[in-house]
Amino acid sequence: MANKHVVVLGAGFAGLHAVRELSREPGVRVTLVDRNNYHLFQPLLYQVATAGLEAPQIAFPIRAFLRKHKNARFLLGSAEGVDPRARVLWVEGRPITYDYLIVGTGARTNDFGLPGVARYGYGLKNLDDAMKIRDRILSACEEAVRTPDPARRKALLTFVVVGGGPTGVELAGALGELRRHVASRDYPDLDLSEFRVVLIEAGPRLLEAFAPSSAQYAQRFLEKLGVELMLGEQVVEVTPNAVRLRSGLNLPCFTVVWSAGVTGQVLPGLTPARGNRIATTPELYVPDYPSIYVVGDLNYLEYRDGRPHPQVAPAAMQQGALAARNILRELHGQEKRPFKYKEKGSMATLGRSHAIAEIGNLKMRGFPAWGAWLAVHLYYLIGFRNRMMVLSNWAYSYFTYDYAVRIMHNRHSFAEQGEPVGDSVRL
Amino acid sequence: MANKHVVVLGAGFAGLHAVRELSREPGVRVTLVDRNNYHLFQPLLYQVATAGLEAPQIAFPIRAFLRKHKNARFLLGSAEGVDPRARVLWVEGRPITYDYLIVGTGARTNDFGLPGVARYGYGLKNLDDAMKIRDRILSACEEAVRTPDPARRKALLTFVVVGGGPTGVELAGALGELRRHVASRDYPDLDLSEFRVVLIEAGPRLLEAFAPSSAQYAQRFLEKLGVELMLGEQVVEVTPNAVRLRSGLNLPCFTVVWSAGVTGQVLPGLTPARGNRIATTPELYVPDYPSIYVVGDLNYLEYRDGRPHPQVAPAAMQQGALAARNILRELHGQEKRPFKYKEKGSMATLGRSHAIAEIGNLKMRGFPAWGAWLAVHLYYLIGFRNRMMVLSNWAYSYFTYDYAVRIMHNRHSFAEQGEPVGDSVRL
Repeated sequence: MANKHVVVLGAGFAGLHAVRELSREPGVRVTLVDRNNYHLFQPLLYQVATAGLEAPQIAFPIRAFLRKHKNARFLLGSAEGVDPRARVLWVEGRPITYDYLIVGTGARTNDFGLPGVARYGYGLKNLDDAMKIRDRILSACEEAVRTPDPARRKALLTFVVVGGGPTGVELAGALGELRRHVASRDYPDLDLSEFRVVLIEAGPRLLEAFAPSSAQYAQRFLEKLGVELMLGEQVVEVTPNAVRLRSGLNLPCFTVVWSAGVTGQVLPGLTPARGNRIATTPELYVPDYPSIYVVGDLNYLEYRDGRPHPQVAPAAMQQGALAARNILRELHGQEKRPFKYKEKGSMATLGRSHAIAEIGNLKMRGFPAWGAWLAVHLYYLIGFRNRMMVLSNWAYSYFTYDYAVRIMHNRHSFAEQGEPVGDSVRL
Repeated sequence: MANKHVVVLGAGFAGLHAVRELSREPGVRVTLVDRNNYHLFQPLLYQVATAGLEAPQIAFPIRAFLRKHKNARFLLGSAEGVDPRARVLWVEGRPITYDYLIVGTGARTNDFGLPGVARYGYGLKNLDDAMKIRDRILSACEEAVRTPDPARRKALLTFVVVGGGPTGVELAGALGELRRHVASRDYPDLDLSEFRVVLIEAGPRLLEAFAPSSAQYAQRFLEKLGVELMLGEQVVEVTPNAVRLRSGLNLPCFTVVWSAGVTGQVLPGLTPARGNRIATTPELYVPDYPSIYVVGDLNYLEYRDGRPHPQVAPAAMQQGALAARNILRELHGQEKRPFKYKEKGSMATLGRSHAIAEIGNLKMRGFPAWGAWLAVHLYYLIGFRNRMMVLSNWAYSYFTYDYAVRIMHNRHSFAEQGEPVGDSVRL
């Protein structure tokens, strides 16, 4: 037991819950590795992208988290791969030997190989993504103000979200609120009818993980807010200034947020299964390498109807904790336990005072669901300060109808037709 | 009067106060031009650089400010020059014709042509500067944790501030607090004696604009906090991994903040006087071009003993307002008034509960001065939300001894001896 070394890769929900469990056993040494120095609360990323929250408010310094966990240390770095036989994790050219490895590297945006998506689209998986989207929205509005050509101006003011899952819906709703409550007051010179928010979904309805009645409520709310829904429409290409759809439609726009899917962030040395996720036993270790556990969005363990567990925060937290407990059980000579997912339900916010929530058989919508959404997100946000700051921001926005973080750090340029755009340019 | 067009260049303290005055005359059209979409509260930049505040909390969206000023519009862009005879301001290739122009482009870091300063040093004049310094401090600490070579580790943990004016003193004090209260808890593996904060000043004492007794108090406080003062030392070169001093001393370090001086950000088309500032009449217009006013840090109007007005916020606010009023007076056929500077005193914070303040003949220090400093800075911060957020942050830091915004957006790399460093590298 003494001096067994557990390396936890990734400081997401899964990784932090693993560290928390492992700290119960002071005899175990823990090293937490992440390429960032903070834990990111991904569920609120869309609010950073839409000027509702400041980036550091949804990020928590890993070293502040580790102050309470005396047997753990932090190593900043990108993992390059694992050698399962030698039990070595490679981090930026340095070998880290482990007795157990818990891999929770999560998922990243999946462009499905569609042309132009990676180059001209914007993912929404990390802080940099969110701040780039915010910069781009603000840059596009400023560029529109001084663009006399109406076609170009309309394209600048067309904000397209691809993917009708919770992320796409929440982002489109926040953009709709931004249009209604902020753009109208900030840009008296702009014609608000030129400011469009378009949500494109390939399936026949939004939010396929929710009940049809919840999804219908969401659709009606978004439409009333002025969000244009394009259902049953598939994107075939993203160009510098348009989105091309399978139906033949060409939608001129300069800002495309891609939230149509994710794929596992595989660690070289492990063999990916479907969706680039790593298959594990019910006890969450890799069948060939019992010293390697895979948890969170990267884990591929079938749940129901041959489908794996959903890639959501509660599953990640529960898997991180179980992997840690199974390691401790093995060290104590006890039998490992299989993963039993406790569903916490699903929720999505749509806009001011409106959300949907499904908890077991209970379906909520409107203000009660919104209240539940706020409470749950504040509860899972790590750190008293971040909770206080986020709550202050929400209260401020609620009472003033304002989304105040309209600060452009890097101005984007918008090239003429045909030229590539998409990279931020420092002026 | 009707449709006279006043262009205000620069949304600093001077520019905003000019716009505020001009909005009293609805017949005048105002265009506010800035290269950023926000007003920046520069006096608190050092707290963003040292993880005390989040960047958007000291930035206020210009369009939010202009909502109240119906005769003003905003144009985002960098000014390239002015043609005073044609009364045209050039902004990114577009001509903006004006009847009056108020120039408040402020000042930027002055490297005095010393080798290496521009390339390897960090200024502290804008949000980007502040966020880069924060990223660099955090990156250097993480790099130090995994650096076995003691000499290199010490250089990584040596943070040098050049310039003993208020900015340098406030930054060095904040770094000292960060070392004492944060580094000690975040980096249990590091030897705190290797973490050095060095403040270099060419003159015989700090804070030459303050009374000797105030400066002495500041020096004693900083020394007790563990800040190393090097007085009477002049920097002759900054290299990738050291600062070379005239005395022959070579101080190995990877992070040098340069706050030793500023120089005017001249607008091409205007002829600079001393310090790259623009000389004006007492009424604040350029002698050869009565339609151009110059205000704030860029203005060079002699005040006392042949020295111009200090480059501080109160002077900028007063000049911006007077320039606007003088334009309105001319339009009303009234006589213009000369600038009479109302001194508001000087203050600098040193650390927790400690500051110095001189208001007229009153000299304050310690907790009362700190309270006054907090009140004055909150008062001048624009926007209810920013005040609320900054106050919350200060209260949080005060009670927890924590500087919570330890979020690294872009990790810096530290090259080996001899290689150039200084640019941030995205990993």
